[in-house]
Amino acid sequence: MTLPKTVIAVIGGSEATPEALALAEEVGRELGRRGAAVVCGGLAGVMEAVCRGAKETGGTTIGILPGREHSAANSWVDIPILTNMGYARNAIVVYTGRAVIAVDGAYGTLSEIGHALGVGIPVIGLETWTLFREGAMDNGIIPAKDPLDAVEKALKAAGSRDG
Amino acid sequence: MTLPKTVIAVIGGSEATPEALALAEEVGRELGRRGAAVVCGGLAGVMEAVCRGAKETGGTTIGILPGREHSAANSWVDIPILTNMGYARNAIVVYTGRAVIAVDGAYGTLSEIGHALGVGIPVIGLETWTLFREGAMDNGIIPAKDPLDAVEKALKAAGSRDG
Amino acid sequence: MTLPKTVIAVIGGSEATPEALALAEEVGRELGRRGAAVVCGGLAGVMEAVCRGAKETGGTTIGILPGREHSAANSWVDIPILTNMGYARNAIVVYTGRAVIAVDGAYGTLSEIGHALGVGIPVIGLETWTLFREGAMDNGIIPAKDPLDAVEKALKAAGSRDG
Amino acid sequence: MTLPKTVIAVIGGSEATPEALALAEEVGRELGRRGAAVVCGGLAGVMEAVCRGAKETGGTTIGILPGREHSAANSWVDIPILTNMGYARNAIVVYTGRAVIAVDGAYGTLSEIGHALGVGIPVIGLETWTLFREGAMDNGIIPAKDPLDAVEKALKAAGSRDG
Repeated sequence: MTLPKTVIAVIGGSEATPEALALAEEVGRELGRRGAAVVCGGLAGVMEAVCRGAKETGGTTIGILPGREHSAANSWVDIPILTNMGYARNAIVVYTGRAVIAVDGAYGTLSEIGHALGVGIPVIGLETWTLFREGAMDNGIIPAKDPLDAVEKALKAAGSRDG
Repeated sequence: MTLPKTVIAVIGGSEATPEALALAEEVGRELGRRGAAVVCGGLAGVMEAVCRGAKETGGTTIGILPGREHSAANSWVDIPILTNMGYARNAIVVYTGRAVIAVDGAYGTLSEIGHALGVGIPVIGLETWTLFREGAMDNGIIPAKDPLDAVEKALKAAGSRDG
Repeated sequence: MTLPKTVIAVIGGSEATPEALALAEEVGRELGRRGAAVVCGGLAGVMEAVCRGAKETGGTTIGILPGREHSAANSWVDIPILTNMGYARNAIVVYTGRAVIAVDGAYGTLSEIGHALGVGIPVIGLETWTLFREGAMDNGIIPAKDPLDAVEKALKAAGSRDG
Repeated sequence: MTLPKTVIAVIGGSEATPEALALAEEVGRELGRRGAAVVCGGLAGVMEAVCRGAKETGGTTIGILPGREHSAANSWVDIPILTNMGYARNAIVVYTGRAVIAVDGAYGTLSEIGHALGVGIPVIGLETWTLFREGAMDNGIIPAKDPLDAVEKALKAAGSRDG
């Protein structure tokens, strides 16, 4: 068995609109097609949708769980990592990816965007937060126009980090 | 010795403009005057300024450090907490406060804002991030017009959480 | 207000015999008399006894809590630190002390002894674990004959680390 | 690709004798043969030996790293998890396994044994620590006579936890 070399973190809320879930699922499918693994928070909503999509196309999925119960992972998580660290596990989710794709998302996702950008991990945004600082838009998040564009940009950013 | 019952988290970057440092120092002085303790990340910049201000007016300061070296704490930290957990310690900073005051700040501060709002800890903003989601401004951060207003709002929000 | 420069970690179980609780309380009283602060896990049993003892003699007490609720701290904790990291907070308890005193204790205490000795923080033992490795007793834990001896040895070990 | 359902944590030091490394490598080979995945701390010594053994027999290996650099993982780690939490990551290593096999090991391993037994995760010991408490040997660690016996006992203990 050969496991994917490139791991992309996909972040987003445990509750999401049908539109956001569809975006996340397509991100997962495309990552699977392209041979990249997914790491996420392992729970419901966007996390579940991206895992389901990845499994449809033969991808690998890692779930960094906030608790200590295997059963909390969604059904499409291949590799549950049990942290028992609550939301502090958000930092681990983004550090484990070579790049991050943010889909929609609430405050937990915001904390993950901050953790990623704070250490220089590229973040691609799909219908997610827009950030302003000192009266100007912050350019930290790279916008994507659709799931395929997001995956393309994430893999490109990840590749330049590997090199 | 009686230690302050109310602890307010003050967050902001390790690098900051003179204007932001002046705001943070005044926040610290006012928290000290009002008998509240400060918890922060324990390093330089806004963290150092708020601690220095708090000590000028007899306050107590707690620094949640990313590393394992006492010497990394700024000179105005009374109580260094050594986590060795890097930026994952950001969650501890905000959880330890009854409310949060964000002064300016970069991506680390953004992660702290996300962690606080994600669990319902009130965040007061002073020249900090502005957040937009789905085309509308997010109202999670309560704006303050100056340091005294920020402290007033933080203590009020903290008080309602104690009650 | 001047806070103690030297912080000693006191570790032990949340359930303990009356004899172990009496030892912990006397350790707390002596640390308070000697002007040292106590850091512990903030809960019941040995943690509560050492805090109660420290407060009887004017000491300062820091509780590194596993959860996110202020109310979980025992009544003698001056400064509750809210980690929400479960037992992973055990590492923070020992890193925050200049030396560690282990009183009795179960498996959580064992993890703390491992974390402390693993990074070279001195551990003084009072009726606690005895460790054997490769057929010989491990000398990592410095035995103490009573609470005063434990505090004496901890302060001496802490002092040599400060220097 | 189907990933193994059962994950066993293997713990031990980053420095070890040739005898301990041989034991760890055989544990890895047997886990691979039996279709179980390995989770470990991802670094050198026992951690590297168990991963190398597992890969020889087609196993899957997860490394929970203390830092934030992919390059710190040993060459036989399939899935590096980047925590940046130092030794606090030890708790994650054991929580992620259904059972734990301890091979030799120093103080870091001791902290992991404490974290595992503290939450009821079975620990099988192979030439590792022996623990005494209140004058009697603690029976928390289940002794194994060789690597095959260790794997047999770990899988049996893991199976009863799944059920």
